[in-house]
Amino acid sequence: MSWLSQSIMATKGVAGGKAGTHHHLSEEKQGRYHYVLGGFAEPVLEVEPGDVVEVETRDAFEGQITSESDKPSEKLKLPYLNPQNGPIYVRGAQKGDVLAVHIKSVLPRGPQPAGTTCLISEFGGLVGTANTAVLNAPLPEKVRKVRVDETGVYWSDRVTLPFEPFIGTIGVAPEIEAISSLQPDYYGGNMDLPDVAPGAVIYFPVQHEGAYLHLGDCHGVQGDGELCGVAIEIPSTTIVQVDLIKDMPIAWPRLETDEKIMTIGSARPLEDAARIAYRELTRWMAADYRFDELEAYMLLTQCGKLRLGNMVDPKYTVGASVSKKYLA
Amino acid sequence: MSWLSQSIMATKGVAGGKAGTHHHLSEEKQGRYHYVLGGFAEPVLEVEPGDVVEVETRDAFEGQITSESDKPSEKLKLPYLNPQNGPIYVRGAQKGDVLAVHIKSVLPRGPQPAGTTCLISEFGGLVGTANTAVLNAPLPEKVRKVRVDETGVYWSDRVTLPFEPFIGTIGVAPEIEAISSLQPDYYGGNMDLPDVAPGAVIYFPVQHEGAYLHLGDCHGVQGDGELCGVAIEIPSTTIVQVDLIKDMPIAWPRLETDEKIMTIGSARPLEDAARIAYRELTRWMAADYRFDELEAYMLLTQCGKLRLGNMVDPKYTVGASVSKKYLA
Amino acid sequence: MSWLSQSIMATKGVAGGKAGTHHHLSEEKQGRYHYVLGGFAEPVLEVEPGDVVEVETRDAFEGQITSESDKPSEKLKLPYLNPQNGPIYVRGAQKGDVLAVHIKSVLPRGPQPAGTTCLISEFGGLVGTANTAVLNAPLPEKVRKVRVDETGVYWSDRVTLPFEPFIGTIGVAPEIEAISSLQPDYYGGNMDLPDVAPGAVIYFPVQHEGAYLHLGDCHGVQGDGELCGVAIEIPSTTIVQVDLIKDMPIAWPRLETDEKIMTIGSARPLEDAARIAYRELTRWMAADYRFDELEAYMLLTQCGKLRLGNMVDPKYTVGASVSKKYLA
Amino acid sequence: MSWLSQSIMATKGVAGGKAGTHHHLSEEKQGRYHYVLGGFAEPVLEVEPGDVVEVETRDAFEGQITSESDKPSEKLKLPYLNPQNGPIYVRGAQKGDVLAVHIKSVLPRGPQPAGTTCLISEFGGLVGTANTAVLNAPLPEKVRKVRVDETGVYWSDRVTLPFEPFIGTIGVAPEIEAISSLQPDYYGGNMDLPDVAPGAVIYFPVQHEGAYLHLGDCHGVQGDGELCGVAIEIPSTTIVQVDLIKDMPIAWPRLETDEKIMTIGSARPLEDAARIAYRELTRWMAADYRFDELEAYMLLTQCGKLRLGNMVDPKYTVGASVSKKYLA
Repeated sequence: MSWLSQSIMATKGVAGGKAGTHHHLSEEKQGRYHYVLGGFAEPVLEVEPGDVVEVETRDAFEGQITSESDKPSEKLKLPYLNPQNGPIYVRGAQKGDVLAVHIKSVLPRGPQPAGTTCLISEFGGLVGTANTAVLNAPLPEKVRKVRVDETGVYWSDRVTLPFEPFIGTIGVAPEIEAISSLQPDYYGGNMDLPDVAPGAVIYFPVQHEGAYLHLGDCHGVQGDGELCGVAIEIPSTTIVQVDLIKDMPIAWPRLETDEKIMTIGSARPLEDAARIAYRELTRWMAADYRFDELEAYMLLTQCGKLRLGNMVDPKYTVGASVSKKYLA
Repeated sequence: MSWLSQSIMATKGVAGGKAGTHHHLSEEKQGRYHYVLGGFAEPVLEVEPGDVVEVETRDAFEGQITSESDKPSEKLKLPYLNPQNGPIYVRGAQKGDVLAVHIKSVLPRGPQPAGTTCLISEFGGLVGTANTAVLNAPLPEKVRKVRVDETGVYWSDRVTLPFEPFIGTIGVAPEIEAISSLQPDYYGGNMDLPDVAPGAVIYFPVQHEGAYLHLGDCHGVQGDGELCGVAIEIPSTTIVQVDLIKDMPIAWPRLETDEKIMTIGSARPLEDAARIAYRELTRWMAADYRFDELEAYMLLTQCGKLRLGNMVDPKYTVGASVSKKYLA
Repeated sequence: MSWLSQSIMATKGVAGGKAGTHHHLSEEKQGRYHYVLGGFAEPVLEVEPGDVVEVETRDAFEGQITSESDKPSEKLKLPYLNPQNGPIYVRGAQKGDVLAVHIKSVLPRGPQPAGTTCLISEFGGLVGTANTAVLNAPLPEKVRKVRVDETGVYWSDRVTLPFEPFIGTIGVAPEIEAISSLQPDYYGGNMDLPDVAPGAVIYFPVQHEGAYLHLGDCHGVQGDGELCGVAIEIPSTTIVQVDLIKDMPIAWPRLETDEKIMTIGSARPLEDAARIAYRELTRWMAADYRFDELEAYMLLTQCGKLRLGNMVDPKYTVGASVSKKYLA
Repeated sequence: MSWLSQSIMATKGVAGGKAGTHHHLSEEKQGRYHYVLGGFAEPVLEVEPGDVVEVETRDAFEGQITSESDKPSEKLKLPYLNPQNGPIYVRGAQKGDVLAVHIKSVLPRGPQPAGTTCLISEFGGLVGTANTAVLNAPLPEKVRKVRVDETGVYWSDRVTLPFEPFIGTIGVAPEIEAISSLQPDYYGGNMDLPDVAPGAVIYFPVQHEGAYLHLGDCHGVQGDGELCGVAIEIPSTTIVQVDLIKDMPIAWPRLETDEKIMTIGSARPLEDAARIAYRELTRWMAADYRFDELEAYMLLTQCGKLRLGNMVDPKYTVGASVSKKYLA
């Protein structure tokens, strides 16, 4: 019996983790990609809890950066960045429910080299930005194209990185807002958290009828913080299974693997993201694992793990986790 | 010749500061108020540059808090807070233009006492919040109703505050987003900056065709930072004149009175809001007042003024200003 | 009867605001200046509560920057910056007492031009710094010498700024530490707060026997935030009167003028400095002015004022204040 | 040939990694412990580069919390917390050199149970604090004593944590300051970073003649961030070997194991600590591993790792690292 059959998704979800219909959300079916997560666009797909969706995502630049001699400032046009597939309407989903998304696979798609990273003016973790406004001259723009396949990310003659793909942006629609897909928040969004990877289930608090799942922005590999702001961006074929847990109010996204449970916070400054994630984790431990909240607080002091997703987006994202071996 | 005739609005605007048609945006005409600033709702009014609009705003709680024995947690329902009038469509406005709004008057409206402030759980500048998440127990809820008229804000037998009204939330629609009216940002929004008061002209960077002006959330008086998160909230009759400056790309809101020019930044942490505001001010001085940017930087070090709008909203807001006497 | 005779210093202090012995702490008497606030150096002067001290301060660069063609990077040598007079031993001062310092005058000293400001690499509010580390190239170094006298600060042909002098760095020794005079904190230090000016009384929580008062770093004028990090730095003759209030535990510096009471917080990020200052102000209002703490919190929301001292030092400093007219 | 013989310590150090004299710094020899890192106290030991020192550290509370019914507020007296062994004078060390400290072992010392954690009022990552000042009531105080030995940390019947000991506080003296041992900074100090563990070499920028090494505050195990502010605090016997690398100017502590190189930053807000650490890592890669700085920046975006030390001390600490397999 796999851990997934024991996960919240399986034990509380409608579908019990069993696969329903398989949908194919191709580029053609998607048509226009979206640059916000919201409830204003028409759903491109309607699914039942338990259904599987195979999604053709575009890279964060929608394929506009094709060569190392391209200049991002000429190719990219804010706010039309980070294209999202969706919205996917999940039948029965209502505010107060949890949408569980089991990530089954994330594979590079299309002609090689499939991976792009770059330096974008006034964007990134070690430069002045639109938010951390300085008078210093910006860094030069710079594009790097790299070969990515299931065997690795071929950075240079000297360095080969592992292929460790994940979904950079995934989330549900806010209740009444439509927010840039560059932003992460309580509904998910551009978290850029490497744990959102094949094998994990991620849980979102549904805000809008039908949940309106969006996803895109897959990465071939990424370090903690997505330092320069641009991971190894790839177009992908991503397969997820969605499920629904009724009447389970959570405040922020959660994630589960066979090894750990994780809560995800997004905020500025970075300590606020960490506070959110760790407070949610104490609450989860109290609600589902019979810990007193202060006991959980003191125990996490000794064994909590913190993963930095991004330190470059409009809000920074961290995941706080605890090993399942301490939750038995 | 008044300063206004010398303001940017007057010298660059279409209408030259002269009043056009007078519109009345009553509660009835407004109908449904809005809880986002965005381009998805239908405009309730269409105006020409130079037109004057008299707006009946509701208080931030839409009148739901009627007595000191009310509990905000029972009366208020997120995200349906901070109701906005609008959108007001301004003919000719396009991305890259500036919408100038001359604030003519802000007066309390309706039966007295008109003013409300309160303590809301996990909201405010001196408590743990949804963002600055703590395990401490929240403060008790508490409501205060005060009489407000043009002669003052009657806080208690002991304390009478001046009536210094201003518009708490005002802004244009983002290009493709619809964002909660609780949020301030580059397009304006919930800045809670007391300088946005009668006599001032505020300038917004237009993002969406027609500008889509929203406003609401008027305050009878407020201290720097709006410390507990709730100023003296009043329903109001607010009169503004709108004008348009074509092809003037600015990045953040600006404000002008006969005494000073001010730039407004919103961000977290607070120093980032201050950085934005001061960088924009150096740019304004360089663009319009013949200062070298580094000279402006050094001069503002000696005479720049900084006003804290709020330290409680999803982003904090500050205005950085310089006296016109140093700009001659 | 002047306000000072009603101030805490006068009503609770030993000396009742009356002047004692007049001491002259000349450059010669000072000898070696200090670059830390601490209890390890020998006092240069011992005074009684009520005594007046006339202090010859050096500018923040100890006079090393003498011309506009100087390069700060060649002239300045960290950590030997911001020279302080003192320590001044105040008889009877013990941990738990308050040292009250009445600032009587701050005048420019020595040959003209007396004022210096400059751009220092990787230091300032609108540049990447040692703390906000970026990869962008630093700004060019730049020195500006300006004439300063009691009639004004002569910035350029175009701009004359008012002469509004104050003490940039003043404080007592921590209990067991010796901390760089570039740093502000709970014991005072490099607050760069323009309210620390003639006419004000500033109150420090004594940490070390004898208080060990230090001061220096006087400014001819300064804007909110000391944006580029260097105000109009002047050598000065500064006259203060010290007094002692026994057994009055305060956590952070406080300040009083005839118009207002102010509390001073220093921290990063900037909102934490504001939180400290405002919390201390609610506590002061509760302790001395018969406000309930939550009442004070709600009232400050409507009439609190916040002044940014610096946004460039190792900690940022703000003063939160309330007008005495609301405290009657 | 072990990795250590290839480390910077071995290849550039005086001693070549070979052990010199073995010193025993017992409680008796130490005598008075210290609560600051500074150059004012007399060294308790003088060693040659290459020497080994066995140190008897006290726990962070100096053994004052002996039972679960103790109240920290009654037992602890600020600033007399976090007692340090030292200063240890290292012959030949001068400003501009690097002190390399090879951590050989950290073992619990004294009668069992040896481990203490607790909740201290207004201290910790999920509560209002002296810096993040709130009006909420503090959490209750709470003490937990746990058995710690080389086989594990026995948290409860339900949870046994691994014994993963490390040094919480270690550093050299600042040049002219003496700073609380509760603080981390560029000279080391209270970093609370679990990587400072047996097997690692940590490198400090020497500021003061003789380096003046201090250490203490050992932990039996700790999670990322030291969430409630108190890890499993243990008295220890810690063995380190010190070495000296002449004329190697580094700005912040660095660390090396056989798997990775790491740079350590301490600042508030947390993103500034991350910026420092990552910028130092790009500089290290550029200086010693033949990467162009922007190439290093882009590569760390894909494979950098970030470890949160503490989010509770006066400055927060993070370590940024890169695997040696990408540095070949």
